[in-house]
Amino acid sequence: MRCLAKDVITAAGENKAGAEIEVSGWVHRIRELGGITFVVLRDRSGILQVVLSEDLAGAGKLTPESVIRVTGVPALNEKAPGGAELRAVSLEIISRAAPDLPYQVNGDIARTGLETILDNRILSLRNPKIRAIFKVQAVIIEAFSAYLRDRDFTEIKTSKIVGSGTEGGTELFEVDYFDRKAYLAQSPQFYKEVMVASGLERVFEVAPAYRAEKHDTPRHLNEYVSLDVEMGFIESEKDLIDLEKGLLAHIFDQVARKNAGELALWNASVPEPDSVAGAPIIPYGEALKIANDEAAAAKKTGGASGGRIFDINPEAERFICAWAGREYGVELAFVNEFPRRYRPFYTYPLDTGGAASLTMSFDALFRGLEITTGGRRQHDYNAFLETLPKFGLKPEDFTGYLSLLKYGCPPHGGFAVGCERLTQKILGLANVKEASLFPRDRKRVEP
Amino acid sequence: MRCLAKDVITAAGENKAGAEIEVSGWVHRIRELGGITFVVLRDRSGILQVVLSEDLAGAGKLTPESVIRVTGVPALNEKAPGGAELRAVSLEIISRAAPDLPYQVNGDIARTGLETILDNRILSLRNPKIRAIFKVQAVIIEAFSAYLRDRDFTEIKTSKIVGSGTEGGTELFEVDYFDRKAYLAQSPQFYKEVMVASGLERVFEVAPAYRAEKHDTPRHLNEYVSLDVEMGFIESEKDLIDLEKGLLAHIFDQVARKNAGELALWNASVPEPDSVAGAPIIPYGEALKIANDEAAAAKKTGGASGGRIFDINPEAERFICAWAGREYGVELAFVNEFPRRYRPFYTYPLDTGGAASLTMSFDALFRGLEITTGGRRQHDYNAFLETLPKFGLKPEDFTGYLSLLKYGCPPHGGFAVGCERLTQKILGLANVKEASLFPRDRKRVEP
Repeated sequence: MRCLAKDVITAAGENKAGAEIEVSGWVHRIRELGGITFVVLRDRSGILQVVLSEDLAGAGKLTPESVIRVTGVPALNEKAPGGAELRAVSLEIISRAAPDLPYQVNGDIARTGLETILDNRILSLRNPKIRAIFKVQAVIIEAFSAYLRDRDFTEIKTSKIVGSGTEGGTELFEVDYFDRKAYLAQSPQFYKEVMVASGLERVFEVAPAYRAEKHDTPRHLNEYVSLDVEMGFIESEKDLIDLEKGLLAHIFDQVARKNAGELALWNASVPEPDSVAGAPIIPYGEALKIANDEAAAAKKTGGASGGRIFDINPEAERFICAWAGREYGVELAFVNEFPRRYRPFYTYPLDTGGAASLTMSFDALFRGLEITTGGRRQHDYNAFLETLPKFGLKPEDFTGYLSLLKYGCPPHGGFAVGCERLTQKILGLANVKEASLFPRDRKRVEP
Repeated sequence: MRCLAKDVITAAGENKAGAEIEVSGWVHRIRELGGITFVVLRDRSGILQVVLSEDLAGAGKLTPESVIRVTGVPALNEKAPGGAELRAVSLEIISRAAPDLPYQVNGDIARTGLETILDNRILSLRNPKIRAIFKVQAVIIEAFSAYLRDRDFTEIKTSKIVGSGTEGGTELFEVDYFDRKAYLAQSPQFYKEVMVASGLERVFEVAPAYRAEKHDTPRHLNEYVSLDVEMGFIESEKDLIDLEKGLLAHIFDQVARKNAGELALWNASVPEPDSVAGAPIIPYGEALKIANDEAAAAKKTGGASGGRIFDINPEAERFICAWAGREYGVELAFVNEFPRRYRPFYTYPLDTGGAASLTMSFDALFRGLEITTGGRRQHDYNAFLETLPKFGLKPEDFTGYLSLLKYGCPPHGGFAVGCERLTQKILGLANVKEASLFPRDRKRVEP
């Protein structure tokens, strides 16, 4: 019966009779000292010091990353990691790692470049600090789903192969689909809306999304995990912002509870869940002013280039979050009421005295990065039809949307959270690619 | 404050003062009777009878599928569905459906062909019986994930764009990936194994999988949702079968608890969760004999063509499940020890006295359909290298696998449950396409 590394201290504390236990895992580190071999064993629960005497069969053949099974007697030892160690009685090498390890799994990743980490992804994912990223990501997905299910949202799974792009034909990956061309979905936008109008009213999806964008920046992936939400019977984007605040607070709470070890490895912390409700909601124009005021102040202290900011670009995102952190105690801000030119054509207009140049839309900015885009959608058939030519679009390219809206569609809207971006910002990763198990960029489709 | 249809009976029972409530939803059905309009209103919670007097503004303009908001006084009425109705005081048509509805949402889907249902997917998904399929599917996914998380499995999200196929180059959809060719992943097989060996040890993934197969059968989809599991430190495929039994029992339990209404609509039921543990595990050779014995018996009563069955084909799957239902009280059977020629090259050999022509592999058959394929994988570097040429494969095409196994990999294995197939068999759907929101087949990439 296998014992996990994290449970050895309990076994050691209870073990007065010197009973043997069995552990299995990877050889994380080997140190020889006066005829004794100290092995740090790594398993899914953590690490454990194993003490092997010189004469133990197999002890001399160990290599880093070998998978071993050890039986031995657990003993308390304050100096050992976790406060206990295992004094080996027998050793089995289940899978001996070749000694020419091309990547040092137990090394300090701060000293390794990102390209090296990604080129050696099969091995670099074994590094406890790197693996921790994906333990956090799993909790984000779990918390996202649980929060929405509790509020009567239904999980959906929609097709990623689509006949055409909802946002026009650019930046789509083309798929050779039998004897025709198809595309990889940029978002489940249309399908989410169909499912709201199907009567499910409230839906969410966790699935890959694709952008055939050529830029290579620390904030872009060509394939990412999109945490999508859509709900019916809303009044404005403010209903969505309220929902997202509750959702983020729950995610932060769950990560704090379940990922304490992972956060510690990265010297990271999540915002206080209670602080999220107080995150400011800033209309676009005001947000731009805040960004410029912050930029001007930063220039005085030499902290910014000082150029004027004309839209909510990455620099503005950083300034607005820093301002929100100072003024509201949380580096999270919702910018809403984006001008029409920045949003998809189906975004619902904001009626402010006739000038419909603003929209019921929003972005969520967290720790200097846009993690969410969302808004209310146009649900009125005639208004949708009238909008198309203003964007140079033709009704015949939107037959799906038109039949969706023509036969009874409630007011609705939604948003998507970029899963890797949220992971990145929770842990303070320099590049979003670090938060993708097998990131896809212009050069990389392997492993 | 909106009241859901399902809560109106409570409101009616408590309402002695005649207080008004508000409901919203779709016009499911309209019936005129002696100057009164009876509307069946549909929302995410169910249906509700709404009584509109002739003189109520807007009552004459209602069309099926319009979205409306009604305020009125709830009243108990034994004859109304759910035992209560709403006597309307005011009506607002939020989104009036055009009267030329191309698909009758409130019709009997048994009278509609599958092609018509799929051609009108945007509207047919509104049919309560069709929508119910996806309420069940959501619970399957939730239960699958929860059961595994409780057992220390970590959810992963792996790339669906891959540089090459792990099972060889056939039946892959090609993607135009910047200036090179890439493919849509047939399964997360390799990535699951990488994550087991990363030290996570136990992982699961819920994600799309792709098969560029040309056949059009009631059991195939070109894109499906794969419920994938992989775990380290197993002895044989029997550890995996044990895990899947627990998993299926939990899924059946959750569907029975959470989808009672949906099951009733389909006149369906799940197996008793307690019966799952008793499902037989039948070695391949024995399974083939059972199938042939059943076929011979069925021939006598005129229930089968009577031809000899040479492998576990769809006919054999039906016979084996019927046999298991009769002999073990559950139409579920695990067939294991498949001959090598039926399984992928990386399947672990079964050591039975030197003849390694059988493998540590299994299928799960449920109600006459294969819903799972799985097995232990080869984790030994040298054995893997030796296997490749026997399958006509070259080491240079498996550099990822080789570096995975070369540097310490525990014994491991896993399986995948086809989400749509499980949904299909729980509800008794004739075709697996019915269990996919937006099914993809040779002809269909829209909507």
